[in-house]
Amino acid sequence: MSLPALQDQLSDFAVRRDWGPFHTPRNLVLALTGEVGELAAEFQWLTEAETERVMDDPDKARSVRHEMADVLIYLLRLATILEVDLEAALKEKMAINETRFPAP
Amino acid sequence: MSLPALQDQLSDFAVRRDWGPFHTPRNLVLALTGEVGELAAEFQWLTEAETERVMDDPDKARSVRHEMADVLIYLLRLATILEVDLEAALKEKMAINETRFPAP
Amino acid sequence: MSLPALQDQLSDFAVRRDWGPFHTPRNLVLALTGEVGELAAEFQWLTEAETERVMDDPDKARSVRHEMADVLIYLLRLATILEVDLEAALKEKMAINETRFPAP
Amino acid sequence: MSLPALQDQLSDFAVRRDWGPFHTPRNLVLALTGEVGELAAEFQWLTEAETERVMDDPDKARSVRHEMADVLIYLLRLATILEVDLEAALKEKMAINETRFPAP
Repeated sequence: MSLPALQDQLSDFAVRRDWGPFHTPRNLVLALTGEVGELAAEFQWLTEAETERVMDDPDKARSVRHEMADVLIYLLRLATILEVDLEAALKEKMAINETRFPAP
Repeated sequence: MSLPALQDQLSDFAVRRDWGPFHTPRNLVLALTGEVGELAAEFQWLTEAETERVMDDPDKARSVRHEMADVLIYLLRLATILEVDLEAALKEKMAINETRFPAP
Repeated sequence: MSLPALQDQLSDFAVRRDWGPFHTPRNLVLALTGEVGELAAEFQWLTEAETERVMDDPDKARSVRHEMADVLIYLLRLATILEVDLEAALKEKMAINETRFPAP
Repeated sequence: MSLPALQDQLSDFAVRRDWGPFHTPRNLVLALTGEVGELAAEFQWLTEAETERVMDDPDKARSVRHEMADVLIYLLRLATILEVDLEAALKEKMAINETRFPAP
């Protein structure tokens, strides 16, 4: 599914709950920060070795997947509110990175 | 383009630069934190009214787009390294949210 | 109480629990990220007006105070582990800011 | 120097620059997020071994110290604006942690 299609599903979800007034750009950035914090917290007390095996434990794996989903959800909501074409932005940024970090 | 197709482009980009050893789960979470921090910094001294018009200034809009792209890039890299199906995770999380926040 | 005195209390607390091996620089940065995320989450769905009155509600005020304490705790632990004199660092940074942003 | 004394210096700095209107709680949380992001970025591509030696390189050490100072600056500004007694909050939180994680 494309990013705009995922964004449409999330917009529909928010509209049906009258969440529009809460989804201002700044609130969504704060929410995104909160979710990245929860994702970081999943890794905070692991050793390097445990980090590599983090997805072997089904409960932990589920938590990591859900925190990653939450990060994506708020990033997509922000893209919708700010009318950012995220796929185009990613390609623009990759083209810049191609120049900045030339492949050997 | 689907999330896995975007992930493939990013993997190819990283492989050609031998970035594999650096892209451990924990490093990618730190990089994601860094990019969310840069995105938050774009909004930090704006008034509420300025926040709503943040995309009207082409330079500012470009910065916001690029920081959002960077957040997406590291989230997708993390999904690749942890072998997380992000679209499935998003749908799983939305199903949970449907139950947790029933639409009126 | 000075920052080093607070750091000593936290070190003592960690030592008595054998938390030393977990308190690596990178783990502490991840923990700091987690706590800043929790602090951001306290503000995420508030309007600007509600934000200004956030400390009027005793329960909310308590949560905000505790999240701020958690941010300070991990920042102080990191200073201890990296042997950073935080007060000196703050004064060094303020001297730089004096030059960068001259007062009118 | 005590936390309130450091806060007074920062308040004086902000007042002389008329930064009061910008230092709303939410803006300060966003600024704090930005600085924690910059601190995380200092560690993002290091191996575990390099992380342990991060303060051996004078330039890197200086960057880490300055990012930690910036985190402290915004945390103290937020404490001033929200009228939070950070030392009391820290002690309250440590008392809770004493109960939650009893020392053996």
